[in-house]
Amino acid sequence: MKDKNKFAVTPPMGWNSYDYYDTSVTEEQVKANVAYMAENLKEYGWEYVVVDIEWYSYDTGSQREKYQYIPFWKVEMDEYSRLLPCEQKFPSAKGGRGGQPLADYVHDLGLKFGIHIMRGIPRNAAHAHTAILGSKMRANDIADPSNICQWNPDMYGIRPEAEGAQEYYDSIFALYAEWGVDFVKCDDICRMDMPSAKKEIEMLHEAIMKSGREIVLSLSPGPALVEEAWHYETYANMWRITDDFWDKWELLLPMFYRCELWQDHVREGCFPDCDMLTLGRLGKGFDGKGWECNFTKEEQKTMMTLWCIFRSPMMIGAELTLLDDFTKSLLTNREVLGLLKHSEGARQIYRDEKRVIWCSRDTSEEKYYLAVFNLSKAGEVEIPWERVENYGIVERKGVELWSGESVELDGKESIFVPEHGAKLLKMY
Amino acid sequence: MKDKNKFAVTPPMGWNSYDYYDTSVTEEQVKANVAYMAENLKEYGWEYVVVDIEWYSYDTGSQREKYQYIPFWKVEMDEYSRLLPCEQKFPSAKGGRGGQPLADYVHDLGLKFGIHIMRGIPRNAAHAHTAILGSKMRANDIADPSNICQWNPDMYGIRPEAEGAQEYYDSIFALYAEWGVDFVKCDDICRMDMPSAKKEIEMLHEAIMKSGREIVLSLSPGPALVEEAWHYETYANMWRITDDFWDKWELLLPMFYRCELWQDHVREGCFPDCDMLTLGRLGKGFDGKGWECNFTKEEQKTMMTLWCIFRSPMMIGAELTLLDDFTKSLLTNREVLGLLKHSEGARQIYRDEKRVIWCSRDTSEEKYYLAVFNLSKAGEVEIPWERVENYGIVERKGVELWSGESVELDGKESIFVPEHGAKLLKMY
Amino acid sequence: MKDKNKFAVTPPMGWNSYDYYDTSVTEEQVKANVAYMAENLKEYGWEYVVVDIEWYSYDTGSQREKYQYIPFWKVEMDEYSRLLPCEQKFPSAKGGRGGQPLADYVHDLGLKFGIHIMRGIPRNAAHAHTAILGSKMRANDIADPSNICQWNPDMYGIRPEAEGAQEYYDSIFALYAEWGVDFVKCDDICRMDMPSAKKEIEMLHEAIMKSGREIVLSLSPGPALVEEAWHYETYANMWRITDDFWDKWELLLPMFYRCELWQDHVREGCFPDCDMLTLGRLGKGFDGKGWECNFTKEEQKTMMTLWCIFRSPMMIGAELTLLDDFTKSLLTNREVLGLLKHSEGARQIYRDEKRVIWCSRDTSEEKYYLAVFNLSKAGEVEIPWERVENYGIVERKGVELWSGESVELDGKESIFVPEHGAKLLKMY
Amino acid sequence: MKDKNKFAVTPPMGWNSYDYYDTSVTEEQVKANVAYMAENLKEYGWEYVVVDIEWYSYDTGSQREKYQYIPFWKVEMDEYSRLLPCEQKFPSAKGGRGGQPLADYVHDLGLKFGIHIMRGIPRNAAHAHTAILGSKMRANDIADPSNICQWNPDMYGIRPEAEGAQEYYDSIFALYAEWGVDFVKCDDICRMDMPSAKKEIEMLHEAIMKSGREIVLSLSPGPALVEEAWHYETYANMWRITDDFWDKWELLLPMFYRCELWQDHVREGCFPDCDMLTLGRLGKGFDGKGWECNFTKEEQKTMMTLWCIFRSPMMIGAELTLLDDFTKSLLTNREVLGLLKHSEGARQIYRDEKRVIWCSRDTSEEKYYLAVFNLSKAGEVEIPWERVENYGIVERKGVELWSGESVELDGKESIFVPEHGAKLLKMY
Repeated sequence: MKDKNKFAVTPPMGWNSYDYYDTSVTEEQVKANVAYMAENLKEYGWEYVVVDIEWYSYDTGSQREKYQYIPFWKVEMDEYSRLLPCEQKFPSAKGGRGGQPLADYVHDLGLKFGIHIMRGIPRNAAHAHTAILGSKMRANDIADPSNICQWNPDMYGIRPEAEGAQEYYDSIFALYAEWGVDFVKCDDICRMDMPSAKKEIEMLHEAIMKSGREIVLSLSPGPALVEEAWHYETYANMWRITDDFWDKWELLLPMFYRCELWQDHVREGCFPDCDMLTLGRLGKGFDGKGWECNFTKEEQKTMMTLWCIFRSPMMIGAELTLLDDFTKSLLTNREVLGLLKHSEGARQIYRDEKRVIWCSRDTSEEKYYLAVFNLSKAGEVEIPWERVENYGIVERKGVELWSGESVELDGKESIFVPEHGAKLLKMY
Repeated sequence: MKDKNKFAVTPPMGWNSYDYYDTSVTEEQVKANVAYMAENLKEYGWEYVVVDIEWYSYDTGSQREKYQYIPFWKVEMDEYSRLLPCEQKFPSAKGGRGGQPLADYVHDLGLKFGIHIMRGIPRNAAHAHTAILGSKMRANDIADPSNICQWNPDMYGIRPEAEGAQEYYDSIFALYAEWGVDFVKCDDICRMDMPSAKKEIEMLHEAIMKSGREIVLSLSPGPALVEEAWHYETYANMWRITDDFWDKWELLLPMFYRCELWQDHVREGCFPDCDMLTLGRLGKGFDGKGWECNFTKEEQKTMMTLWCIFRSPMMIGAELTLLDDFTKSLLTNREVLGLLKHSEGARQIYRDEKRVIWCSRDTSEEKYYLAVFNLSKAGEVEIPWERVENYGIVERKGVELWSGESVELDGKESIFVPEHGAKLLKMY
Repeated sequence: MKDKNKFAVTPPMGWNSYDYYDTSVTEEQVKANVAYMAENLKEYGWEYVVVDIEWYSYDTGSQREKYQYIPFWKVEMDEYSRLLPCEQKFPSAKGGRGGQPLADYVHDLGLKFGIHIMRGIPRNAAHAHTAILGSKMRANDIADPSNICQWNPDMYGIRPEAEGAQEYYDSIFALYAEWGVDFVKCDDICRMDMPSAKKEIEMLHEAIMKSGREIVLSLSPGPALVEEAWHYETYANMWRITDDFWDKWELLLPMFYRCELWQDHVREGCFPDCDMLTLGRLGKGFDGKGWECNFTKEEQKTMMTLWCIFRSPMMIGAELTLLDDFTKSLLTNREVLGLLKHSEGARQIYRDEKRVIWCSRDTSEEKYYLAVFNLSKAGEVEIPWERVENYGIVERKGVELWSGESVELDGKESIFVPEHGAKLLKMY
Repeated sequence: MKDKNKFAVTPPMGWNSYDYYDTSVTEEQVKANVAYMAENLKEYGWEYVVVDIEWYSYDTGSQREKYQYIPFWKVEMDEYSRLLPCEQKFPSAKGGRGGQPLADYVHDLGLKFGIHIMRGIPRNAAHAHTAILGSKMRANDIADPSNICQWNPDMYGIRPEAEGAQEYYDSIFALYAEWGVDFVKCDDICRMDMPSAKKEIEMLHEAIMKSGREIVLSLSPGPALVEEAWHYETYANMWRITDDFWDKWELLLPMFYRCELWQDHVREGCFPDCDMLTLGRLGKGFDGKGWECNFTKEEQKTMMTLWCIFRSPMMIGAELTLLDDFTKSLLTNREVLGLLKHSEGARQIYRDEKRVIWCSRDTSEEKYYLAVFNLSKAGEVEIPWERVENYGIVERKGVELWSGESVELDGKESIFVPEHGAKLLKMY
């Protein structure tokens, strides 16, 4: 049997449609982002393209003033209770071709294809008593009427002990494998709001193993339960450690605690997930127009630095075709992104209300990284040298990876960092 | 405008189909109980006949080994999203006559007709987008997909603020008024498991007031929230102060605390509800055969005594046509049942692990009641005479109302009570 | 045996030293307030003078910048572990005379004398192993080292099951009875923060009964637990339904909910307590100078109206010798205060975010009261006439008791009430 | 500055007085255990001797039928509010020599000396206003009267922000360093029952660093809060992950979950602590006689196996001078104990209600360990070979370390394990 930890040896890097398009992304829009990525970002390690929530739903976004998710509405579904791409939005899905044509497009450009799913089975299937592939049971036999998602009306949770339950999850992953899906983000499951969620995570894992395809399993939404860390590590590749993250300092600030909490759980095939990078042009699906990232430039570097040294999965939220030069520069800094690929042992060594300090080791050369975050006003940020030394860093000079400038800290107690900013030093 | 407190001046007394028939009672079975009540119990004050849960559902009881309530199943419903009696079980409902023929039957025998409803609107209506009488909105516009009952799959809760929401509740009570319904037990609402429940109680009250018919409003399941006492008192006639009550001493014992908790909230039109009297033949719908009440005779008297002195609503759970003589004697003791009609000011004056003492006053004559409960083994139960006197009882003799025997307590500190039993004394 | 409900047939009315003097009130200051009350307020029903917290402690107020209550400090205590008045502050206590001289002074002016105590036994006694009157046990035998007050360092809670525990409470109430105490406010007990509190309330009651003196028992701090209502009613005369109340609208506003919650529990000898009237000159012990009541005049009327119609105990917080004319007018309105003495059956009949309506009945004449509160900006406040009628009020004219003006409401839907103000109508 | 992680490079191994002696251990008894350890156990890696709770208290154990810890009692204390060994129990402490003579005895036999302390400052000091070394503040200035231990009456917690607070902790560790203490188990702190505990852990660490001595810091009681893992790792060497552990299967069973929870947090200088080994003769201080370990022999092996592969600190609870041969064999198995010294990367790879499987790697040779636990009846326990392989173990034969027998598992799906037993395999 394959080892799920080999499906994602380093943190997955890619783009996700949600932060810009919400529920309403179309095939054409996805393709434009795929093309941009292939041409501009692929060489820096970006490879996944993930179509987020409700690709199966009709009329998404048409009642945005009332609902994010229109309840009791039409979805595209096959005879086996399996959701299919909505042909309004994904014309290539016509004729029963499902997600395969789009997956092919992605693969042809050398990238990988991901989709979002909701935990459970469609409510429409349960009420229509539709069949389950590979079982004589029907949707109403495995759907649990009291097991629902609190924020999305599409599905019923599945009774894990019901005959047909595993078969249903097997059937959808068999279909995704057929299409050529490389990455599945399963929602309404990570926080384990429903008691069945823990068992459903195991069922997803088993379905992937049976599918024969190396599909990365990503769990949402957070915050994940740290007391279930072993469970996530054993059955999934990444799990969200925060609720939906957006471009506000009040949301970025607690990420330092969240990374502290999960730092001992990062390793091959196992990545606590800080959520999408809220950079560039965002939010068109939410307010009809979208907005530029509300973070200052320094805050953006802080986010990138923390995600990289912690080694979170990296999913760009911005509409790629509208990327400005500054944002692009953040996403194409080979030295910074290199931490995702060739660093390990990252540890927070200090945190208080004003500053946070992390250290990590390079795995390819005998070098170390030192990240200094300023949570407060611009100024000198003291470095706790004893702890830095105890970590193993003896050098006091290096290169700041965002600026490329040499830094000499010998005899210095501190380094200047702008308000809410970060310095990421490679020490040697 | 009418005063809802006048709809039930004293605690409602009647029969409810649930404890014997569960979800599966039929018209014929109801009628047999109605006939029995008219002939044997009416003269003692029993008057309501309540058809409990899922009279609208098909095939109820047919999958009892898997479900109490079959999910995603067929229900009888009109074009306005209103549930109607299932014709399998209620043949007289055919031809659009609904509950009226059965109500007529009940009324013709001088009794009153009650039905059970679930909070909300049928899930089937929401998924089918059916209409709402008196509104241009449809079921899917007012149903809230994340507002469900935890234990029954029939309905979605209603968004109180949605256009069409009050109209829907108005429309069902207009129908019930047409049929001639005198009593509605609304379920999944009393414990306020969902935030909308509080507002939905107000909507039910408003719908009753608009219906023009004096319909008693009963709320289930408990335990009701004592911090919402004012709300229940203002909008309903009775509210369950316990979860489903059954014939086990472990469930009867905590009723003493529950009655203590609610004793200051009993008054005209406002009755905290101890749930059905689990007496006689019970449970056929639950295990296919039914059983005789598991309480000892003394425990049955204890239940009757507590419910009566507290002035709980009294709904018989037993199948009436199978009533044995002992049970019947409990249900036809005019003196005991008289407390429901002409006593007031009931107070627990003592409670510890071994005994409970209540006092109350007669409203028609200058007499008092004294109830002595023995929670422990048979033996002498001490009476706290100072507290009894402080309550206003100076006499130390009277009649024990279950036995009809005279009791002389002058100079005595205690009275003999059997294990788990009760003495109910009228003092004079 | 006496009936504790006869100790306070109507809500106690008086003055309490805390709101102005905090921990530091002296005998001279108490006497000045007593004299003022006897001359100016007694005829309106005000009669209790209560010396609040730490009358036994030395140097109170001397470290106010660090502590409200100086921990591990000197207290006056007799050989039986009983606290005595600190002679620094109460010179008449010298020579072992304790509180008696001050009590005599109060009684001589026709008033009643109250003191504050903390639940438990002095920590100093436990550490010094001092004796307990009437028991061979010592303070360390009954003190529970893990049973403390969260906000005051003076005492240890008592182990209810320990030999000597009841004897200790008996001994302090015997002393208070000797002094001539008429009212005891026991603190750190009402909210039942510690598991022993419930049993300690029973012990206090028993000690009072044994003392032979009719001592009113008042429990603090709140909020009292409504699920323990029966316990308070059975063993105490008044119990605080709020945490410490001060002169801020944000604290007055929730009192409407608290009164709603407790309205069914008001009766002879049993008074849910809204806390002191924060009127006039307040707070010298807190900030060294004191301040004028922060409520607007209308808010002050609202407080007085709610406390009176609900029938809360009424304890003035102001320094009496500094009473201004307006405040004095509030405290000497015979008609308004009359509700405390001769009204009953008070009920909130309506409450939303903007308005609250209460009704009650006069017990001496066939009249009703109607209170209309405006929680919002000045304007017309709608009166729910149907509910008013259902309560029993048929008249639509009367007198507004604060202004003494006649009011004619026939055909009117509303009445004008100033912002945060109240109208209190006697209808006839 | 020194690195606290170097103070305990591998899990500390030793003996603790609590499980046999409770509060009453004497110098003579400690010495007997020290001598036994030096002669019989030292060569297997056992080196710490820890004197547990209340070595400073008089008359310990004399009121065992009422209290484990006599409240408000005499303790030995110096003029600086520092507890000293009670001379009743530790005669060598006379003449102000404190713990030094006993420490010398331990060191002379080549072992290390540990003591237990309670968080905070003695209550007796606070009430007596004694001095603090190095500060003009006194005990009552830094003690917090509302910050207490729930189960022991000796101390008050310290206000972390008070002047003199750090000085007090510095002063006690200066004294312990003088004595020659190598290990401090601080109690009432790990579970962070009081809000100050987190800051007090930092103060303890700082005091150790200032003391100039390499004192291992152990925190009790558990369960430690996994969301504070970083804090423990940064400031302490070991922290209890369970409440007091005793010789009952119901307590051993949940240790599998606790080890799962903390497995990613074990590394040099940082050891989640499973608590003392409840083996051999236990409990004399508790029941006056003591008892033989209630675990079956298989359960004892299970405990030893789990503690060793997880790499918990190992503290023997048994009275060493009464060790039986079987228990001694468990404590002197070099191969098993070797995992503490030269294994790493331990992971639970499977857990359900019936079985638990762990793997780890040897650091000195290219070998792996595989532990198979049977939570149920004796029988074949299935090994999840795919997960074993994914961990890196390819060999299917090896030696079982308790029995020393060769095991051949090629082609086998399972291994026989007795009820509640364990097999610990070294694979090669």
